[in-house]
Amino acid sequence: MIYLDNAATTKTAPEVVEAMLPYFSEYYGNPSSIYAIAGKSKEAITKGREQIANVLGAKPEEIYFTAGGSESDNWALKATFEAYKNKGNHIITTKIEHHAILHTCEYLEKERGAKITYIGVDENGVVNLDELEAAITPETILISVMAANNEIGTIQPIKEIGRIAKEHNILFHTDAVQAFGQIPINVDECNIDMLSSSGHKINGPKGIGFLYIRKGVKIRSFVHGGAQERKRRAGTENVPGIVGYGVAAERAARTMAERTAKEIEVRDYLINRILTEIPNCRLNGDPVKRLPNNCNISFEFIEGESLLIMLDMKGICASSGSACTSGSLDPSHVLLAIGLPHEKAHGSLRLTLSEEITKEDVDFVVEQIKAIVDRLRSMSPLYEDYIKKQQGK
Amino acid sequence: MIYLDNAATTKTAPEVVEAMLPYFSEYYGNPSSIYAIAGKSKEAITKGREQIANVLGAKPEEIYFTAGGSESDNWALKATFEAYKNKGNHIITTKIEHHAILHTCEYLEKERGAKITYIGVDENGVVNLDELEAAITPETILISVMAANNEIGTIQPIKEIGRIAKEHNILFHTDAVQAFGQIPINVDECNIDMLSSSGHKINGPKGIGFLYIRKGVKIRSFVHGGAQERKRRAGTENVPGIVGYGVAAERAARTMAERTAKEIEVRDYLINRILTEIPNCRLNGDPVKRLPNNCNISFEFIEGESLLIMLDMKGICASSGSACTSGSLDPSHVLLAIGLPHEKAHGSLRLTLSEEITKEDVDFVVEQIKAIVDRLRSMSPLYEDYIKKQQGK
Repeated sequence: MIYLDNAATTKTAPEVVEAMLPYFSEYYGNPSSIYAIAGKSKEAITKGREQIANVLGAKPEEIYFTAGGSESDNWALKATFEAYKNKGNHIITTKIEHHAILHTCEYLEKERGAKITYIGVDENGVVNLDELEAAITPETILISVMAANNEIGTIQPIKEIGRIAKEHNILFHTDAVQAFGQIPINVDECNIDMLSSSGHKINGPKGIGFLYIRKGVKIRSFVHGGAQERKRRAGTENVPGIVGYGVAAERAARTMAERTAKEIEVRDYLINRILTEIPNCRLNGDPVKRLPNNCNISFEFIEGESLLIMLDMKGICASSGSACTSGSLDPSHVLLAIGLPHEKAHGSLRLTLSEEITKEDVDFVVEQIKAIVDRLRSMSPLYEDYIKKQQGK
Repeated sequence: MIYLDNAATTKTAPEVVEAMLPYFSEYYGNPSSIYAIAGKSKEAITKGREQIANVLGAKPEEIYFTAGGSESDNWALKATFEAYKNKGNHIITTKIEHHAILHTCEYLEKERGAKITYIGVDENGVVNLDELEAAITPETILISVMAANNEIGTIQPIKEIGRIAKEHNILFHTDAVQAFGQIPINVDECNIDMLSSSGHKINGPKGIGFLYIRKGVKIRSFVHGGAQERKRRAGTENVPGIVGYGVAAERAARTMAERTAKEIEVRDYLINRILTEIPNCRLNGDPVKRLPNNCNISFEFIEGESLLIMLDMKGICASSGSACTSGSLDPSHVLLAIGLPHEKAHGSLRLTLSEEITKEDVDFVVEQIKAIVDRLRSMSPLYEDYIKKQQGK
């Protein structure tokens, strides 16, 4: 099996699982209790918080654990809106956010009286800063722009966005689910007020995430109840998950330079082979401002779904976009936002590498893609028409 | 160590951890993806859903996984209110609910225009059914009553409450975080529309819970985003957590009769020894309608906190109430609701057994409690006054 869907989820690293194990059946105490065994759980949480804060240049007490990226995004948007709605009801985001942001915005518009502006992106998926700044009104309380896109891998200019937000005294939230641990992010340098992340995207466990909340941001609770997480997020802490996440974050930061350098090399080899050896395809996303492990290609005249199924038969795990929208027949909102017509958006393939992927793997994958694309196009009436036209010229 | 705080959290059972392990680093695919390895994750979730549904007499598709009991409670109340607020804005609950219910109700009252009625309980903590029925208005959309109390262990008459709710065409939610897997619950027999539960209370992992939602209940989403959980709860599924929860639920149901019979015997031995051998103490909660593993005793003239610290020094893990409110100096709202004065509410001790606790353990624990209570009382001026008064008589 060649696993090329690391943007959907990653293998939990063995050292992460190993670190988690004692917290299931040995140090299982509830961190809110006062006896010794519970102290072990409390210490473990403190350590996890520190490990994560270190990666971001944040203070440990600014890290609040959640169940994952979606909860973090929901929390950031809904509870910021509640806390600041007396100041204004306007939120600015982009057309290419993850659905955890977009559907939360739709909810806030429909149910809570928010006004949302969705900023467009250029053909590479980079957010338009002029449009962003022009959208700011006295009612604007929050700007939420993802640090890097989950489908096409485009890295956003979050430093510039943070500067703009700060100049206008507006809170800045970034969904860093794809970016955290993959590219360096410093919350102070980027003036980030809130940041969402998810453990299972960086070889940590599923079911754990965090929301970074800058000290002083008066966000409300999203999950009400017990006094956990400085009374901001109720629910018994997922101690093994937090331990695993901390180790995964520390590991991601420690290996980042070497790992991503290797991934970029293999990724560019993959991209170049496909673009030069397969006709009528294009790279989606920015060629340079791009996540180290992301390759997203549109193949004309074919359906992404068929391509995926045939790749799976060859033991290659890939995706046509976000795993969270699989099963949907709608074309990707991200690909539409960068200007792809529906038919090209349907024929897209996302390959997201890990450090384990070699050029030899890529050679095998490219050969399979070539064969499959050939076969699928040979069955496509659209491709037949296209070839006839080409030959007629 | 003698662990007597199983209402706070439990040891994850070895067979649960073993079942989870392959889903970290072997079958780690995102269940929303289409390739073979993701199919393994999807199958695992389906199995977990079935295992849990079986325990409740529910349909698997009525089980929605969450991050835990608090999220489930928040979801049930907030999203039901949103879905049904055009029908009415009134919710009935009780004074002795967990804070995940009470603080969510406060939020709904303060921020969303809900009206909440908090029903009282008798001296044993049993909800007053006449008061409940009398509180119903044409605006009532939801009744939320816990199946069993987390502090004093009182089991509520949820079958009768379900009947009342159904007769009045009102939705019935029950927080079964303490009851699920400890006492038999059938959602049809009790006319339950929604039920919250948490994995780590039944020897499953922390960070996973579920909300049962009866087919036809038009509850909205609480976490918006991807299309997971039949589009009702966004976020990549916590596959290892779900696998562990399923095994834990199946195990809890399978061992329930034998396990709880043993626990009841040991519990009653514990309660009887304390009540007969230590003067000036009382059992909190119903003596019969009581969770099999719960013992909650108030000792006059002492502070629960000091008792806990001294028990910890003897290797005994206990609690003065809910772990979720540890660190708070307020007396338990549950003990106040059953009529205890502040000073008695402060001197309470919760001991919650597991199947591993023997009568020999109890003998050791009782001897320690006797010695500690004696010592603490010998330092108490209130106790001195009391003794003088007694002797004066």
